[in-house]
Amino acid sequence: MNGAEALVRTLIASGVDTCFMNPGTTEIHLVDALDRVPEMRGVLALFEGVATGAADGYGRMRGRPAATLLHLGPGLGNGLANLHNARRARSPVVNIVGDHATSHERHDAPLQSDIDTVARNVSRFVRRSTRPEDVGADARAAVTAALGPPGQVATLVVPADVSWSAGGAVAAPASPAAPAASDPARVEAIAAALRSGQPCVMLIGGRACRGEALVLAAAIASVTKAKILCETFPARLERGAGRPPVDRLAYFGDTALGQMGPARHVVLVDAPAPASFFAYPGAPSLLVPAGCATHALCSPEGDPLEALRMLADAVGARAADAPRQEASRPALPAGRLGTDAANTALAALMPEGAIVVDEGNTSTVFAAGRTAGAPPHDWLCLSGGSIGFGLPAAVGAAIACPDRKVVVLESDGSAMYSLQAWWTMARAGLDVTTLLLTNRSYAVLNMELGRAVAGEGGGGPRAREMLDLSRPDIDFVSLARGMGLQASRSTTADELVDQLGRALATTGPSVIELVLA
Amino acid sequence: MNGAEALVRTLIASGVDTCFMNPGTTEIHLVDALDRVPEMRGVLALFEGVATGAADGYGRMRGRPAATLLHLGPGLGNGLANLHNARRARSPVVNIVGDHATSHERHDAPLQSDIDTVARNVSRFVRRSTRPEDVGADARAAVTAALGPPGQVATLVVPADVSWSAGGAVAAPASPAAPAASDPARVEAIAAALRSGQPCVMLIGGRACRGEALVLAAAIASVTKAKILCETFPARLERGAGRPPVDRLAYFGDTALGQMGPARHVVLVDAPAPASFFAYPGAPSLLVPAGCATHALCSPEGDPLEALRMLADAVGARAADAPRQEASRPALPAGRLGTDAANTALAALMPEGAIVVDEGNTSTVFAAGRTAGAPPHDWLCLSGGSIGFGLPAAVGAAIACPDRKVVVLESDGSAMYSLQAWWTMARAGLDVTTLLLTNRSYAVLNMELGRAVAGEGGGGPRAREMLDLSRPDIDFVSLARGMGLQASRSTTADELVDQLGRALATTGPSVIELVLA
Repeated sequence: MNGAEALVRTLIASGVDTCFMNPGTTEIHLVDALDRVPEMRGVLALFEGVATGAADGYGRMRGRPAATLLHLGPGLGNGLANLHNARRARSPVVNIVGDHATSHERHDAPLQSDIDTVARNVSRFVRRSTRPEDVGADARAAVTAALGPPGQVATLVVPADVSWSAGGAVAAPASPAAPAASDPARVEAIAAALRSGQPCVMLIGGRACRGEALVLAAAIASVTKAKILCETFPARLERGAGRPPVDRLAYFGDTALGQMGPARHVVLVDAPAPASFFAYPGAPSLLVPAGCATHALCSPEGDPLEALRMLADAVGARAADAPRQEASRPALPAGRLGTDAANTALAALMPEGAIVVDEGNTSTVFAAGRTAGAPPHDWLCLSGGSIGFGLPAAVGAAIACPDRKVVVLESDGSAMYSLQAWWTMARAGLDVTTLLLTNRSYAVLNMELGRAVAGEGGGGPRAREMLDLSRPDIDFVSLARGMGLQASRSTTADELVDQLGRALATTGPSVIELVLA
Repeated sequence: MNGAEALVRTLIASGVDTCFMNPGTTEIHLVDALDRVPEMRGVLALFEGVATGAADGYGRMRGRPAATLLHLGPGLGNGLANLHNARRARSPVVNIVGDHATSHERHDAPLQSDIDTVARNVSRFVRRSTRPEDVGADARAAVTAALGPPGQVATLVVPADVSWSAGGAVAAPASPAAPAASDPARVEAIAAALRSGQPCVMLIGGRACRGEALVLAAAIASVTKAKILCETFPARLERGAGRPPVDRLAYFGDTALGQMGPARHVVLVDAPAPASFFAYPGAPSLLVPAGCATHALCSPEGDPLEALRMLADAVGARAADAPRQEASRPALPAGRLGTDAANTALAALMPEGAIVVDEGNTSTVFAAGRTAGAPPHDWLCLSGGSIGFGLPAAVGAAIACPDRKVVVLESDGSAMYSLQAWWTMARAGLDVTTLLLTNRSYAVLNMELGRAVAGEGGGGPRAREMLDLSRPDIDFVSLARGMGLQASRSTTADELVDQLGRALATTGPSVIELVLA
């Protein structure tokens, strides 16, 4: 057995059975192994950012890693932005990066580069296999690292000769590390703060945004009269009718500080201390009121569910105490098509179990509010802030959950980073509806420019031109059709209701472009 | 004056007047500075790989750097693959990468990452400005580093507060380092080898592929009866009628070794020792015959033109000794449209002064042979091997040389990496004709797979599916039109002649898709 086959078989043994790939010559033996290991599903992406973003979406929904297969340093570079998002989402991802054969490196061939420097940007686990005998064990270590806790991006570099040489050995299944035990004293201190009568905020993130952890967090907040908020861009938030309703912290710091109110204690539940997305002259970066104490319930290496159970016991909260969102759907919109009509149509029509990947940016700021009472669904956000996440993540989510409808809320600026994902949706027949909200602008940057130069006479036409997406207008219907997808354009709310209704009632990929009035 | 304006004014003072950008909030003050420094041309790209590839194409044609403007670590990551190509081409490029404000870093906001680790992959010069007072001097140093020799990618990281704070100071123009002096003893030793009567090869690359250096290298080879070859993927090769004809070293090592023949000496003129693009089991990586000596005429820090002048004197060669390519054009093709018909149509129709950006990969292997006697033109190759170079480099070449026609030979697989470049061509009205050769395959990988697993029963259907670009077929006419370009499809040679003839006779961007029979 060559190293390539040993690697693929090890991944299968460890439960990694999907590989999003854009391979090259140095990975050709890994590709060839697909015919000998049919348990591994290869999914071709036409750009590496699609492969890595798909792995992020997959990891968020499955809780275990997909693999990526990338071509040397440049291939990893192309995948880096979405690996950054995966790192911030604490998604488990195993990157397999091919490299030149060991003996070839000293010749500094054109594609040679220092892969490690790139991988370190997103990976604490970076390893290079040096022998086919080791590659199985190295892959096992990579899966173990990816699983965490916390989930992370792990990168294994595999020279071509390690792949093609005989001597490969399959390793035993990966076994993730046990989470760090929760600290009873810390839990008790937090319980005391919650019982103090002072204004408290529970800020949930990460693994506390779903399942029993979410319910317990909401119950604790309810019983202690704490305010519960969610981090601004959670990796995956369970919401909708019957689930605890939780507002997300706002993007702009002044609004976020308003949400915090007069809090004296902020309890962080698998969330980092809230910082503004960007810094602004004279504005605070840390989004907690002056004099407010922050308390982390557990570390990223810990188990927030266990800690929440302990905290619930300490404050006398039970799951049944959690508020539940009432079911409610807005009426179908009609007439003019703006962002509110788009959000309303989504809320009125989205099916139970939908996975919403939200990269609508400024256009979908109010989508969460509109859909609060829709049937239960998951909401995936741009955790790392690097646009180009939405379409690839939708690919991964659809492959992770083939029985659920994926709706990706996209914006024109963001979609253009990784539109190649549409081709993979078409090839794999993925059940993804893309709602492309076109406003012909990097709208958030126009807002940021306005804030930055307000009153200084800045923001002139040459600057604005760099934030403008018209001249020429982009025709996303043409782009989607060019990659083999069904696509249509809505110019009124009535058209959108009709097109979205049909898309959601049908299985398979489609794109609806909304030209916002 | 804030730091942003000081930075932009310093770039202008140093002759850097074009910035390919995809900015974000951390760069917003640099964008705003465009209205105060109208000498700087901002060119918007919808993906960072377009910006960096454009800077590569620009640098190759102008010999001085363009700037890029990129958004933090992820933006640099998206640009990395084409910066890799620029590094290999020794193109001068100045990356300006925005970062969070200095005081914001400790909060580890979502877009925070270790930018330096990414930049080191392509940049020997990586610097971080820490004060507005310094940013001008830092920019000057970056331009100086980029100019070389050798030309290189220089990266300057600029925190947002350095941009927005007052106190910026414009620096004096950059002055590039003097090249290392040529070594008379080395020149004399090479002259002796060339005069020895033993078979010799002169392998030219880099700066020796154009102008007086190319002519002198050809003259020296002619006078000494050495064989002259060019590196496989030169950054910019001057060729065509009236210029010295030089064959490029083949991609596959066995063919390349055949070209080397019985050489006993290989003289490297601004070219690295030839290594095969990839390694293969049992095949040599170094592409010089056993027992053959290699001699580098000068170092990358040196001046190949000066060294060639000395060598020409030593062997008694003059410019007039250089062979010159006779003018010749093939007849227009007709009938079936295959790669030969495509190459023939190009050779028959391309105008004088054309800049050919060649990312046709397997489809254009014989394009250089067909066009050898066409009117004088430049030929730009994929120096770093990372696909997705062609369309962005064409953007940069067209902006660098607005009076010349750019023809980009593209393939379906490569085009999909950076198709966003078409939008920039449309917005800027660039005079670029894209010939998109569609074979619905990563054809080179199918060749590599065949070589890798020949006789081993490999290369099965699941592997082949990962190298296949059909199901669905990509409609590049739709994609190009979706980004505002004129586009058409040729299915016969006659249609191609008609469409290409019109595209080359017209100024402005257009796309012709050739579906290869």
